[in-house]
Amino acid sequence: MINIGIYGYGNLAKGVEKAVLKNDDFKLVAIFTRRDPKSLKVSSPNVDILNVSDIKKYKDKIDVLVLCGGSLSDLPVQTPELVKDFNVIDSFDTHKNIKMHFDNVNKNALDTNHVGMISIGWDPGLFSVQRVIAESVLPDGKSYTFWGKGVSQGHSDAIRRIKHVLDARQYTVPIDDAINQVRDLKSPEFITRDMHKRICYVVIDDDKYKDEVEKEIKTMPNYFADYDTEVNFISQEELNKNHSGLPHGGFVLRSGATSDNVNHVIEYSLKLDSNPEFTASVLLAYARAVAKMAKRKEYGAKTVLDVTLKDIAKEDYFDLLTSRI
Amino acid sequence: MINIGIYGYGNLAKGVEKAVLKNDDFKLVAIFTRRDPKSLKVSSPNVDILNVSDIKKYKDKIDVLVLCGGSLSDLPVQTPELVKDFNVIDSFDTHKNIKMHFDNVNKNALDTNHVGMISIGWDPGLFSVQRVIAESVLPDGKSYTFWGKGVSQGHSDAIRRIKHVLDARQYTVPIDDAINQVRDLKSPEFITRDMHKRICYVVIDDDKYKDEVEKEIKTMPNYFADYDTEVNFISQEELNKNHSGLPHGGFVLRSGATSDNVNHVIEYSLKLDSNPEFTASVLLAYARAVAKMAKRKEYGAKTVLDVTLKDIAKEDYFDLLTSRI
Repeated sequence: MINIGIYGYGNLAKGVEKAVLKNDDFKLVAIFTRRDPKSLKVSSPNVDILNVSDIKKYKDKIDVLVLCGGSLSDLPVQTPELVKDFNVIDSFDTHKNIKMHFDNVNKNALDTNHVGMISIGWDPGLFSVQRVIAESVLPDGKSYTFWGKGVSQGHSDAIRRIKHVLDARQYTVPIDDAINQVRDLKSPEFITRDMHKRICYVVIDDDKYKDEVEKEIKTMPNYFADYDTEVNFISQEELNKNHSGLPHGGFVLRSGATSDNVNHVIEYSLKLDSNPEFTASVLLAYARAVAKMAKRKEYGAKTVLDVTLKDIAKEDYFDLLTSRI
Repeated sequence: MINIGIYGYGNLAKGVEKAVLKNDDFKLVAIFTRRDPKSLKVSSPNVDILNVSDIKKYKDKIDVLVLCGGSLSDLPVQTPELVKDFNVIDSFDTHKNIKMHFDNVNKNALDTNHVGMISIGWDPGLFSVQRVIAESVLPDGKSYTFWGKGVSQGHSDAIRRIKHVLDARQYTVPIDDAINQVRDLKSPEFITRDMHKRICYVVIDDDKYKDEVEKEIKTMPNYFADYDTEVNFISQEELNKNHSGLPHGGFVLRSGATSDNVNHVIEYSLKLDSNPEFTASVLLAYARAVAKMAKRKEYGAKTVLDVTLKDIAKEDYFDLLTSRI
């Protein structure tokens, strides 16, 4: 049995609680929150709910601490700090800072003999796995990653910060024609606009600001200006009714040649009803590897690059060999 | 530089020669054949061509020996024998005997301090990787593997053994409707006939035997009787012109739930112009892992379950971390 703790209690943490119900080799021991523990309503029975200030008391009760904070300001601080006392796993997803995060976690993990696994989820995570495998087996080729159809929380937040906007939901949508070009071995070169479009559902305080808000969204640098963006104004009721879920998904494709005119296409795709629940489920599989690596004293920062399949699987090696290979 | 040898010289071996041209960290040192080495025309320049009887002379010149024999009678004997003197890799693909093969290879590999990696390719191989990952991250779900559209050499051979048949090519074709049911989260239960159909192109010596041959194909137990089978009679010229390639591919799908009514679909697919060239390319990526594991003295039989991504990738760990994760 692997005893886990959850650190931070948002959507991802709730997903981890659900994932524990699907994996009977895990036991959720404690949830740590920065809020008043008494204010927390959690779905798991028989779990200790504590303030983060009490965490050191659980040093010997938790095999793996699952960090459920955000990548912007939580994890860059929490993961390097908590790995001093726990084996930890996080879903740090700011791609350009992963190396820096790795170094910060690695130093403290090695100093204190812990495992700190970072950037686990589906991208980074399973998509990273697919990119590395596909490029290793088809070195002469080209890789493409498409995201969606799914809700981008960052883009939804960006719309919400606009004046007169009460609420918003933004979907990132991959462009079918672009995916099909890759499948058809055309090895296309894309600009941003070719691969994804953005569809926004926006609630505003007064319809007379429609044009103003639409223009502000469509011209927003980084977030929308480089994309074909569709803006739909709807009521709060409709937003709540039809756009309350957090679906996501995406595609990793690689096309490549092994000799002249001998081409191959590798395609991986995810279609997810709930981004946080699926991410949590991936975290738990890799938390299994953290527990095993810690037991073998393989300390330090780890990523998907370091993990074997036998470590993420629940089944015994020879069971896998006879039924899954 | 990883020095490799090729043992056995058929389609797969020719694929390995081509794969070496795409991976500049490998050098092909020698090809070993049971035939007269002088009779062999190989495409690689500057490579020693020898009879298998000379192999022990290359004990210190080869880092990984790539075994290119067949799974029926070659590999069950060759892999356990050759692992006594070399680090080896094979594509043993008789799923039900993999455990036995593992044990045979493991014993000799451990006795002599070598790595013997078995059952590498795309199924077993990349498809096994996908099945294990998908089941680990979605434990409450159902997995499906579809093969094709592609040439099954075993089924083509079975047709060729029928009286009056001069030549034949059999395609295994996955049934789109079945794949779509899985994608649509119907978690279907299939019988054999629901998942694949078989399309045969047959050359016979006299058209008057058409009905007889067609009946014999369609009722052949194990190979065809459980499938909807389509038989087309064509000329040898047409077979040579339109059916000389060895394309293949397939799909691994898993659908599963993380909580009530929260469902996800993971899909992996391959579309391959040449089954042996792609298999060879996978073998070479994993041969890289064999070389690294041998250097670290991690001896014994190994499968895809034991391999980390950093070991199959050519790039350095931190290059991967910054560009692929």
